[in-house]
Amino acid sequence: MMKVGFIGLGNMGGPMARNLLAAGFPLTVHNRSPAKAEALAALGASVAGSPAEVARASDVVLACLPTVRDVDDVFLGAEGVLAGARGGQVLADHSTVDIAMTRRVGEATRAAGASFLDAPISGGPKGAEDGSLAIMVGGDAEAYAKALPVFQAMGRTVAHLGPSGAGTTAKLANQLLVATGTIAICEAFLLAARAGVDLEKLHGVLESSWGASRMLGRNAPFILRREFGPSPAPVRNLAKDTAIIAALAREHGLDLPLAAAAERVYSELAARGHGEWDITAVLPFLEGGGG
Amino acid sequence: MMKVGFIGLGNMGGPMARNLLAAGFPLTVHNRSPAKAEALAALGASVAGSPAEVARASDVVLACLPTVRDVDDVFLGAEGVLAGARGGQVLADHSTVDIAMTRRVGEATRAAGASFLDAPISGGPKGAEDGSLAIMVGGDAEAYAKALPVFQAMGRTVAHLGPSGAGTTAKLANQLLVATGTIAICEAFLLAARAGVDLEKLHGVLESSWGASRMLGRNAPFILRREFGPSPAPVRNLAKDTAIIAALAREHGLDLPLAAAAERVYSELAARGHGEWDITAVLPFLEGGGG
Repeated sequence: MMKVGFIGLGNMGGPMARNLLAAGFPLTVHNRSPAKAEALAALGASVAGSPAEVARASDVVLACLPTVRDVDDVFLGAEGVLAGARGGQVLADHSTVDIAMTRRVGEATRAAGASFLDAPISGGPKGAEDGSLAIMVGGDAEAYAKALPVFQAMGRTVAHLGPSGAGTTAKLANQLLVATGTIAICEAFLLAARAGVDLEKLHGVLESSWGASRMLGRNAPFILRREFGPSPAPVRNLAKDTAIIAALAREHGLDLPLAAAAERVYSELAARGHGEWDITAVLPFLEGGGG
Repeated sequence: MMKVGFIGLGNMGGPMARNLLAAGFPLTVHNRSPAKAEALAALGASVAGSPAEVARASDVVLACLPTVRDVDDVFLGAEGVLAGARGGQVLADHSTVDIAMTRRVGEATRAAGASFLDAPISGGPKGAEDGSLAIMVGGDAEAYAKALPVFQAMGRTVAHLGPSGAGTTAKLANQLLVATGTIAICEAFLLAARAGVDLEKLHGVLESSWGASRMLGRNAPFILRREFGPSPAPVRNLAKDTAIIAALAREHGLDLPLAAAAERVYSELAARGHGEWDITAVLPFLEGGGG
């Protein structure tokens, strides 16, 4: 069976790595703070001291990291994955990064004779736990075929969307729908509240209407209970993603009015120090005239 | 059994009226162009020569009309519903209009001793055909209770959302999600196309991701087949609705950035003569640098 490596054991990577163990893959893990790696060791994983060491022990190396800078360090740093990579290996990144970073890591991987797949995920911590993630993959078909059984142990919808960068772009397309959907839901509930509409009943009727969406189901309870504080789905994630989307649109010479508005809202919310708040914190921001 | 009147037998009102007949309500109908009323007569409806005549023949009078101006004419015109209204009657409007028009018709109805319900619908022609509409009602509870069996013959989700105007506001909240959702979907597919993503596979993966929505399922086939021409879901409807939403937001002193951007996009598309095109015609508009 293919030996798999996993770097980054946060609230997404941790359960993804557990699903790989459950599927029977020999697994080597690494995490910046060692406690999370030890928790995987208790379930049968080997613990490596660095990303390079993970690469030396594995046929397929996966990473799931919170920021673009972390991806840079883990793949391209002195003790990074590329320092331990070899020909024939497949490296895959589940993080959501910008296309420039995807290209840099992809080029370095090819220079080492290995293959790189950008493979961002959607589905949140719950999807990571129960193995129902969507995994959006870009890169060459041969590497995709090799890594597919590994992806299928972690996700229910695994799709090869095109050449290198296509997975990242698909994830950014999803994040554009998530960010704009969340802001629009906050605007809709705010407008309705001002007009005396019963918000709980509004949620019910919207779920049966053309406005229904997966984000409506996710966001409405936070709005109805006014739970806008610190959250596992924080503002800073969408501030990062909408900034990447806006940059990508500029690179392609596109003027995307909703993407631009979403970036302004989330970057302003983050700049006001609300980066850890729930993504629905747009609502009190707009109540305060923040839009 | 309550005698029901129905005015406006278009691609929504026609099937709604047929469902009232199927449920056994004695029905009197009126339509500006008589051919559509004759089609209902063949199924058992009585045909009236004016909205006032419909009101004289009915306990509950419903209207479903395409524009704010039509609502004005049908309710408040010389031979309008109010000219035939009497105490104890319930009048309900299924059209999507602005709050000011809802208020005007509501006040005139109360002056006649009758009750007015704003009762906009969502679900499209298909929902009207199979009786699965969402019906969002504002107005007093007694009138709502009286009209409820009539609404239930046409809709699956019927909700009383608050005082007069609450139904209209709920519908506008839904339309805000529809309009912004459609533009965001167009932006997402355009960005992905520029980056070489397989758009059919993108649709599949988005349906399994947080970006999934009822509008994604509706819009993606139009985008994939590039069917942006004349449509039963035309640009002019969202141009009208987003203008009403923007005006309502201003009335409440709210700055809603996505609502404002959606109004700019759809009003510009309509101004360029594309009012009859499908709502996804945003995509070629943005391709041409229209955003």
